[in-house]
Amino acid sequence: VSGSLDLRATALDTDDPLAGMRERFLLPEGITYLDGNSLGALLRTVPDRVDDVLRRQWGELLIGSWDDSGWWDAPARIGDRIAPLVGAAPGQVVVTDSTSVNVFKILVAALRAAAPRTDLVVDASTFPTDAYIAESVSRMTGARLVTVEPDQLGGALSTRTAAVLLNQVDYRTGRLHDMAALTRACHDTGALALWDVSHSVGVLPLELDRLGVDLAVGATYKFLGGGPGAPAFVYVPLAAQAQFDQPLTGWGGAAEPFAMGGTFVPATGVDRARTGTPDIVSLLTLDAALDVWDHVDLAAVRSKGLSLTGFFIECVDELLDPSRVTVVTPRGHDRGHQVSLQIDGAEALVRALAETGIVADHRPPSLLRFGFAPLYVGYGDALRTVTVLRDLLGAGAPARG
Amino acid sequence: VSGSLDLRATALDTDDPLAGMRERFLLPEGITYLDGNSLGALLRTVPDRVDDVLRRQWGELLIGSWDDSGWWDAPARIGDRIAPLVGAAPGQVVVTDSTSVNVFKILVAALRAAAPRTDLVVDASTFPTDAYIAESVSRMTGARLVTVEPDQLGGALSTRTAAVLLNQVDYRTGRLHDMAALTRACHDTGALALWDVSHSVGVLPLELDRLGVDLAVGATYKFLGGGPGAPAFVYVPLAAQAQFDQPLTGWGGAAEPFAMGGTFVPATGVDRARTGTPDIVSLLTLDAALDVWDHVDLAAVRSKGLSLTGFFIECVDELLDPSRVTVVTPRGHDRGHQVSLQIDGAEALVRALAETGIVADHRPPSLLRFGFAPLYVGYGDALRTVTVLRDLLGAGAPARG
Repeated sequence: VSGSLDLRATALDTDDPLAGMRERFLLPEGITYLDGNSLGALLRTVPDRVDDVLRRQWGELLIGSWDDSGWWDAPARIGDRIAPLVGAAPGQVVVTDSTSVNVFKILVAALRAAAPRTDLVVDASTFPTDAYIAESVSRMTGARLVTVEPDQLGGALSTRTAAVLLNQVDYRTGRLHDMAALTRACHDTGALALWDVSHSVGVLPLELDRLGVDLAVGATYKFLGGGPGAPAFVYVPLAAQAQFDQPLTGWGGAAEPFAMGGTFVPATGVDRARTGTPDIVSLLTLDAALDVWDHVDLAAVRSKGLSLTGFFIECVDELLDPSRVTVVTPRGHDRGHQVSLQIDGAEALVRALAETGIVADHRPPSLLRFGFAPLYVGYGDALRTVTVLRDLLGAGAPARG
Repeated sequence: VSGSLDLRATALDTDDPLAGMRERFLLPEGITYLDGNSLGALLRTVPDRVDDVLRRQWGELLIGSWDDSGWWDAPARIGDRIAPLVGAAPGQVVVTDSTSVNVFKILVAALRAAAPRTDLVVDASTFPTDAYIAESVSRMTGARLVTVEPDQLGGALSTRTAAVLLNQVDYRTGRLHDMAALTRACHDTGALALWDVSHSVGVLPLELDRLGVDLAVGATYKFLGGGPGAPAFVYVPLAAQAQFDQPLTGWGGAAEPFAMGGTFVPATGVDRARTGTPDIVSLLTLDAALDVWDHVDLAAVRSKGLSLTGFFIECVDELLDPSRVTVVTPRGHDRGHQVSLQIDGAEALVRALAETGIVADHRPPSLLRFGFAPLYVGYGDALRTVTVLRDLLGAGAPARG
C-alpha cells in the first residue's frame, strides 16, 4: 500500500464528522460493507422497535392498532419523514407498494394529465423495472414509448411528449444526472418531468419542490436503510394532487375507506396514491430505520460521499493497472455515492472480495460496483478495498466466467 | 345466563380437539378476540423468528441473504406453503403485493386471455376494493363492467362474458357462496372464473385445482394470521401460466431479473405474477405465522367453525330480543366463520363490548360482526359475548349514532 494513501486515509477518517455514525449500525465485525446502495445496513435500534410492533401493537392491541397505533395513517406519516430528504413540504409523500407498482401509477396518471399528448419518454439506461413497466403502460394506454439516454433528452422531446421518466442516478455507472436542467428541458416543451430517485434519496439533498418536479417515486431500502424490499414512496406535489388520477384504485386510496361505499372516490390528498391495506410490519421497520436521518445533515452526507468516492477513485488510479480497470463513474461531482469499475471477471472478483470480508456487487456483463454509504463506510475501507483488489488482480485471479 | 347453554358451552369446550391451539397465540389475558376475520392473532413464535430475520439475515448476512437466506425465492416458497390450504398443487401460488394490486393483475390478465369477449362481471356485494379495482380495469381496457349478486349470476352471464370475479364469503353477512356451482356456471358459458378467497382461506378446505378455478387472489392477514397488511397471494394454475399475461411487469416477474435485460420476458412459472422487489420483512413474518397450519387439519378447523358459529346463533336466538336483533348470517352450512347481527347502534355496541374485553367490529350502517377463528376462540367465548350483549341491550345501551 502506498504510504501516502495510507496516511491520507487515516487523516480523513480522523477528521470525518460522520465517523461516529457507524456505531449506530449492527454491521458485523471485520466486514467492509460496500453494498449499501443496494441494501442499506441495519440500524441498531430497529429490531427492538419491530418487536414492539409485533408483541404490543399487533399481539396486545390487535385490531385497535389501526387507530391507536396509527397504522392506517402510517403511509402518509412516514411519507412526511421522507419529505425533507427529498425537498418536499409535508403532505406530498406517501409510502406504499413497491417502486415498480408506483412507477405504473405515476406513468398512467401522467399520461391522463397530459392528454392529448401521447409520447412517453423513458431513460434508456434506467434500472430495468422502470422500462418494463413503461412498456406495459404503453401497451395498455396506446402511448408511444420513446427511449433515450438522458444526455440526449433534447432530441426526444416534442410537443407530443406527455411525460418523461428519468432515473437520477444511473445504477450501473453511478452517474448523477442534472435534475434541474433536465426538468427544465421537459417543462420547456410542456412535458411532465417524472423522476425515480431510488438511487439518490439519502445520497444528496434533493429539491423536488423547488425544481417543480411533477411526480416522483423512490425505493427506501437502499441508502435510506429501510430494510429488504421495504415499501417505496410516491411524491405528488400539492398543486397536482386534485388531478392525480392513478389506476390502482384500491380502498387504501379512497376518501372514506371505512364507509365501504360502492363507488371509488379518491382521497383528497397524497393518500390517493395508496392502493391496498398498508403493509404494517415493513412500514414500521422502515419508520424505525428512518430515525438515523434525524441525526444527520444531508449536506454533510453528500460532502463525505463525494470525498469518499473521490478518494476511492484516486486509490484506483494509483494502485490498479489501467489496462485492466476502467473507472466508468464520472470523476466530477456528477456522481452518486457509488463507483463502478469496468473489469474482466467482475462476478468472480465479487466472490473473491467477499472472502476477505469486502461486500460489493456486480452488474452484467463486467461492472464491479462499490457503494459508499457515508454513514457506515470510511476512507480506510476504500483504501483497503483497492489494495485487496490489486492483490487479487496481481495474483492472476479471478478465474474467468 | 341460561344454565343449559352454560353447561353446553363447557361441555363443547372440554371436547374441543382444537382447544389447546389457543396457547400457541400471544393473546392478552381476559380478551375475547372475535376479530380474527379482520386481523388474525399473533402466533407466539413469530417475534423471535422476525428478530432473526432482522439481526442475522439482514444485519449479518446483508445482501447475501437474497440467495443464502432464500429471500429472492420467498414469494414462491411461501406460496407453496399456502397451496395446500387452497387445494393447489405446488408451483401455482405466489405471495406478492396487496390483494387490491393482485386483483388488478388477474382482471387484466383474464380479459386478455378471454378476448374478444369484453364483459367483466363482478360480485355486487364484494369487499369494495375489488369493485373499485374492477372499475379502473374497465376504464383502462374498455371492458364492460357488470355487477351482480352472486345468487343472480346466471342472469348476468352471456357469450360476451370474459371473466367473473366473486368473493367466496360476503364480508358483511358472512355468507359462503357455492364455489363449485358458480365456477361451473361461469365455465358453462365459456367465462373464466376468478375468486377472491380472502375471507375463506383458513376457514374451510378450498379446492381451487379440483374445481378448475381459473385465477384467484387472497389476503393472508385474516384467518391465516400473517400480520397486519401482510402480502397477499395469487393463484395461477399450471395450465394457465404460459398464457398469464399481467400488466404489472416489474423486474420481480422477469425470467432473468439479474440479467438486467432491456426487454421484459416473463418468468415461466407462477413467478410471473410477481412485480417489484419482494417485501422481505413482511413476507417472512407471514412465513413464521404459517407454521400453525402445519399442526392443524383444515377439516377439523371447519368442523369447529361451523359448530361454534352455530352455537353463537343459538345463544342469540335464546338470549336476545328478536325485535331488536336479526341474524343476517345464513343458518345452514353456507356461512364462513363469521356471524353478523343487524342491530341499531352497532358502532356504539362495538365500543361497549370492547370495554368488557370483547373485540368485535361493525360495518356500516348497522352490522355488528363477530369472527370465530377456531384456533383461538371457544364456545364459552361465544356464550359470554351474547350474555354481555344482552346486558348491554337490556341496560338501554347503546346510545344511538
